[in-house]
Amino acid sequence: MDTHIGLDQAGAARAARLDRLAELAIRVGLNLAPGQELVMTAPVEAIDLSRRITEQAYRAGASLVTTLLADDRAVLARYRHAREESFDTAAGWLYDGMATAFRNGAARLAIVGDDPALLAGQDPDRVARANRARSKAYRPALELISATAINWTLVAAATPAWAAAVFPGLPEAEAMDRLWDAILAASRADRPDPVADWAAHNAALLARRERLNERRYAALHFRGPGTDLRVGLADGHAWMGGLSTAKNGITGNPNIPTEEVFTTPHKDRTEGVVAATKPLAYQGTLIQDIAVRFEAGRITSATARTGLPVLERMIGTDEGARRLGEVALVPHSNPIAQSGLLFYNTLFDENAASHIALGQAYSKCFLDKALTEAELAARGANRSLIHVDWMIGSAETDVDGIDAEGRAEPLMRGGEWVR
Amino acid sequence: MDTHIGLDQAGAARAARLDRLAELAIRVGLNLAPGQELVMTAPVEAIDLSRRITEQAYRAGASLVTTLLADDRAVLARYRHAREESFDTAAGWLYDGMATAFRNGAARLAIVGDDPALLAGQDPDRVARANRARSKAYRPALELISATAINWTLVAAATPAWAAAVFPGLPEAEAMDRLWDAILAASRADRPDPVADWAAHNAALLARRERLNERRYAALHFRGPGTDLRVGLADGHAWMGGLSTAKNGITGNPNIPTEEVFTTPHKDRTEGVVAATKPLAYQGTLIQDIAVRFEAGRITSATARTGLPVLERMIGTDEGARRLGEVALVPHSNPIAQSGLLFYNTLFDENAASHIALGQAYSKCFLDKALTEAELAARGANRSLIHVDWMIGSAETDVDGIDAEGRAEPLMRGGEWVR
Ligand SMILES: [Zn+2]
Ligand SMILES: [Zn+2]
Ligand SMILES: [Zn+2]
Ligand SMILES: [Zn+2]
Repeated sequence: MDTHIGLDQAGAARAARLDRLAELAIRVGLNLAPGQELVMTAPVEAIDLSRRITEQAYRAGASLVTTLLADDRAVLARYRHAREESFDTAAGWLYDGMATAFRNGAARLAIVGDDPALLAGQDPDRVARANRARSKAYRPALELISATAINWTLVAAATPAWAAAVFPGLPEAEAMDRLWDAILAASRADRPDPVADWAAHNAALLARRERLNERRYAALHFRGPGTDLRVGLADGHAWMGGLSTAKNGITGNPNIPTEEVFTTPHKDRTEGVVAATKPLAYQGTLIQDIAVRFEAGRITSATARTGLPVLERMIGTDEGARRLGEVALVPHSNPIAQSGLLFYNTLFDENAASHIALGQAYSKCFLDKALTEAELAARGANRSLIHVDWMIGSAETDVDGIDAEGRAEPLMRGGEWVR
Repeated sequence: MDTHIGLDQAGAARAARLDRLAELAIRVGLNLAPGQELVMTAPVEAIDLSRRITEQAYRAGASLVTTLLADDRAVLARYRHAREESFDTAAGWLYDGMATAFRNGAARLAIVGDDPALLAGQDPDRVARANRARSKAYRPALELISATAINWTLVAAATPAWAAAVFPGLPEAEAMDRLWDAILAASRADRPDPVADWAAHNAALLARRERLNERRYAALHFRGPGTDLRVGLADGHAWMGGLSTAKNGITGNPNIPTEEVFTTPHKDRTEGVVAATKPLAYQGTLIQDIAVRFEAGRITSATARTGLPVLERMIGTDEGARRLGEVALVPHSNPIAQSGLLFYNTLFDENAASHIALGQAYSKCFLDKALTEAELAARGANRSLIHVDWMIGSAETDVDGIDAEGRAEPLMRGGEWVR
């Protein structure tokens, strides 16, 4: 056995940083309550981080941590060998089990680290059918998450396939090192006191969303290359961002990293054209140069340079898949945007730019937090099996807030906050 | 990167043998039906075999394969860091989900490869409480398996910790190689035509159990060093072994390997003393030199050289935990016994020797396959949260069958079948 002192030192430093990320996930992301159960999902390649998070969870008083490890190789075996009918099935028993755990008070943590190109070579019809079956099976659990019934969070781990996508051409070890560095920097896990840094960051996001909430804009108007889009906001919408208090009373950060403030658009009130400013990695396929037209809230035409069949199937999932469920503002000066990296991962890329999401709206993005499904629908909240963010902001993006009388106020110019 | 041609060739040969084991698991063990779902559990260290089994399952027409990977390191983190209350909790939502999958027709495959000493250093009270909580949560799923509602099977994979226990002192790579060799040989995966070999082996086991079923013995009488035990058999008992037809109509081998014929004792009719002939690896603790006295079916005293607190807590799980749920006959000449290895794993060690099991009886071990719980109880079938096999046979063991009139017929002498 070889033991290089230099490697061991680098390994120890990396381990300490990963433990800090794990601590952030449990204490800041979830704010896990003593005695609370935790359900974690992770790619099997992220088992090292999942073990560190498990340890932090038990140190914080978790009653039980259950980790469901996903294996891309098993997914590929299915596409290679399974019968056609397989692609219409999903593990409903497992997703229902997760929903039961959430109803019984469990917190939810997902480690993301997906291979953005995993399913790039697969039949888009099969990919779409498998996604539809899974989305349908996952719906009861996802609704609890969307409605913030429980505290939940996402954190990222570098995996070889993801690192290869972000740093093509680099040797695996170097690509992994660089992706870990980028994840830790973006997640603010690399600072002297990450927990204090997150407290200050959350305070700034809170001030921003409170200012937007006071203005009660009727719509946002985005302008940029290929974009002239008016996004009508839902009646009684509320801006969110940073800390979020779940219905179980626990306040945490559902995304690590997070740089956005966001709210719910009205599903019938988006008009105009919009061009994506970053590629969208959707369920293993890369969709590049998306351009879309909205009329009365609904996508009436969509083009893309690559991945168009996947985009078309995605927006064909259900009626809500072609309407907006979220709009978010992110200044171009934030650390993730400044890294200049394309992460091929929504958790990072959405925090590098202002964005919209097709599909399911967040019921928490309303002033009234106890709305029924009928009341949400009446206010314009969208419903769908999907929720897919894509980036429409850049250093060339201007955003106006439009008030109820139609008056425009500048919000962002050249990608930065005006006020 | 070093690439040794020799290693690659050995790797390719190993891969081909593992694919044969994977094929045996799906085609002989489960006899998976086209369109059937599969729920697999495996230690994360066995992910290579789980991937091969996944591929074989899809090739055989599986609708969906879901693998739950278990991580010993997460288990240890719990013992190291969790609060005391944690040890009374279990992931009921997950076990209920599995039971739902089985009720909906899924098959069940478990890859075993546990570290036999995982919990050896832990507080036996915590280990027992955690096991009790898990057994209780798993009960609905286990009952479907015990009653053979579905086709299920166990196969083994070598893991570093298990290999270190079986081959202490060897370097990890060599211990892993030797354990894989032993697993493949015991599983008959190493022969020119494993599927045909299993057909012949199953025919021999069938002939043996049919002869025992014709005799309708009232009891078995075991004699050997430290053993003079009369095991009364349940009324209407049936001997099983080798192939088993599940209530879903699918015929497979629930254990790979298997060398035993077995039936259900009467829970009140075991008398005498019995000494284990092999150590028992129970949930991470090694229990050595077990000696027990039964009176009217119930353990009234128990000793062991090591692990006695764990044994005592095990038999204290519930009233059924101190009564028998299985008795099995295995000749000493079989290939697993002849390997001379102690596997520290029930799947292998129980097939090296005649054995008894404490706890839950198999309801399938009756002539009448449609008995209610009340009818099973009336015939003497035991009920418990546990089912733990331990070995009582050796080359020095004699077994008689005792008929309804009390007449003894020699069944085994010196560990071998007489007739
Ligand atoms: Zn967003
Ligand atoms: Zn979103
Ligand atoms: Zn047995
Ligand atoms: Zn048994």
